Amino acid sequence: MISKPTKFPGNPKCKMKTPKDVVEMMMAKDYFSQWLGIEVLETGHGTSKLKMTVKKEMLNGFGIAHGGITYSLADSALAFASNSHGKKAVSVETSISHLVSLLEGDEIIAEAKEENCSNKIGVYTIKVTKAVDNSVVALFKGTVYRTSKDW
Amino acid sequence: MISKPTKFPGNPKCKMKTPKDVVEMMMAKDYFSQWLGIEVLETGHGTSKLKMTVKKEMLNGFGIAHGGITYSLADSALAFASNSHGKKAVSVETSISHLVSLLEGDEIIAEAKEENCSNKIGVYTIKVTKAVDNSVVALFKGTVYRTSKDW
Amino acid sequence: MISKPTKFPGNPKCKMKTPKDVVEMMMAKDYFSQWLGIEVLETGHGTSKLKMTVKKEMLNGFGIAHGGITYSLADSALAFASNSHGKKAVSVETSISHLVSLLEGDEIIAEAKEENCSNKIGVYTIKVTKAVDNSVVALFKGTVYRTSKDW
Amino acid sequence: MISKPTKFPGNPKCKMKTPKDVVEMMMAKDYFSQWLGIEVLETGHGTSKLKMTVKKEMLNGFGIAHGGITYSLADSALAFASNSHGKKAVSVETSISHLVSLLEGDEIIAEAKEENCSNKIGVYTIKVTKAVDNSVVALFKGTVYRTSKDW
Repeated sequence: MISKPTKFPGNPKCKMKTPKDVVEMMMAKDYFSQWLGIEVLETGHGTSKLKMTVKKEMLNGFGIAHGGITYSLADSALAFASNSHGKKAVSVETSISHLVSLLEGDEIIAEAKEENCSNKIGVYTIKVTKAVDNSVVALFKGTVYRTSKDW
Repeated sequence: MISKPTKFPGNPKCKMKTPKDVVEMMMAKDYFSQWLGIEVLETGHGTSKLKMTVKKEMLNGFGIAHGGITYSLADSALAFASNSHGKKAVSVETSISHLVSLLEGDEIIAEAKEENCSNKIGVYTIKVTKAVDNSVVALFKGTVYRTSKDW
Repeated sequence: MISKPTKFPGNPKCKMKTPKDVVEMMMAKDYFSQWLGIEVLETGHGTSKLKMTVKKEMLNGFGIAHGGITYSLADSALAFASNSHGKKAVSVETSISHLVSLLEGDEIIAEAKEENCSNKIGVYTIKVTKAVDNSVVALFKGTVYRTSKDW
Repeated sequence: MISKPTKFPGNPKCKMKTPKDVVEMMMAKDYFSQWLGIEVLETGHGTSKLKMTVKKEMLNGFGIAHGGITYSLADSALAFASNSHGKKAVSVETSISHLVSLLEGDEIIAEAKEENCSNKIGVYTIKVTKAVDNSVVALFKGTVYRTSKDW
């Protein structure tokens, strides 16, 4: 959409950011996504695909992954997808349905889809699945407010 | 409700669990709540009050607390409040509205309230506030399914 | 799944209900869905597809369809899909994102998909689209509790 | 906030709208709220209190009020509360937990509270109760986008 390199290559400050540029800038300072061990598999305009593995320090009192772990992975996918157009976007409301429990060692993938992208509001659904068999682990829906600030 | 000590003190296995007992059992194995540095301020039948401090490794690419941090604190408050009656309960649907950004060093408090407690389903609202001025940071709503399994 | 006719045709009371049977029983007494003018296009195990037209008495103060209209259509789709297996199911938590405004005369379609169907809890997503061009109008997510009562 | 009468009483077009003015303008064309029989009990900056009675044509296939009825009452309360400041606001995401069933003849009250009011986004909680005993029937949370258009 707006990701083509500028015609003025002499001035790197004027270069339009691609989704990959934005996500790299975000991940560089996203210490929590780093702690989670999130790996960025794909980026695109309005999309993102992330992967992580459940570790022991992510478990709750039931011996399964804390609900906040799946939420956090999906929330990072939301942030990357909704900021991918080059303008800063902030989450205003999110919900998640936890369908299946996760154990230590489980690999999970979150894939974000842009359902709606108006001038000021964006709506995204993120499906979290198990890498081993693509079974659905959680369904996440997120609404963001798009600011006019550039990345 | 069902938290009085049994009349048969000779058999500790028969002792009914208090909310405090349950939360202590949960926290002992809740490695993620431990990583978050969650401190249990209060427990009760259908309630809980937790506190934590935002640390550098909890920040996202905007330099503010990752949405998953506030969610995780609220989700722990939900788990403790909904399991407090002595039966195991599991989260089925949760939502959170992020109202205000949090910075490193901010102390936040999550307080859970039981809005409804039928036989099988429970609904809780959790308000997350800043410790310094009680301003509201996030609003969380959670629905749980109550199993018939004892803690 | 459990919709095959019984081997004892002599006793109609013993006949297992099909999704179509259940939805017909529900619609017969669903006076509000009747008022909305809901037409059942398809029924199935865990699915349903409904259609309606926005009428003048469904508008709000902005001259567009009241948010409750789209919600109600989606909620009926949830009820039909989640009761289709022959056991009574009740909604416990629902959410809807309104993406596009609707005007008088717009024809809309709601299609329910079963995302998860465990013993006691079911999760469904319902997409509401405009009949004229399949554009997405609203995204609905619903969680139900499955009782053990037969239809 | 901005509801004081102007200093130029000669020009009625310049008069700032009060919450009551806005809700009266909205209700005059809100044919669905009229069909529901909604009565406006109170209006204020960021608040509203509405009442209605469940009628036979509002029932679903279970013989109880259709989920869309309670939602619609709460959604009207959201609209009135979020537009009360004199600027047009539109709903972007709403959720509702249905806690208790309603029968024909039940009188219900919805009361909206402004949880957050930033420049562009507002978050409201609406509690729906039975008039007869103040018991909670449903919990609703709504997020709106504030436009810059005056009422």
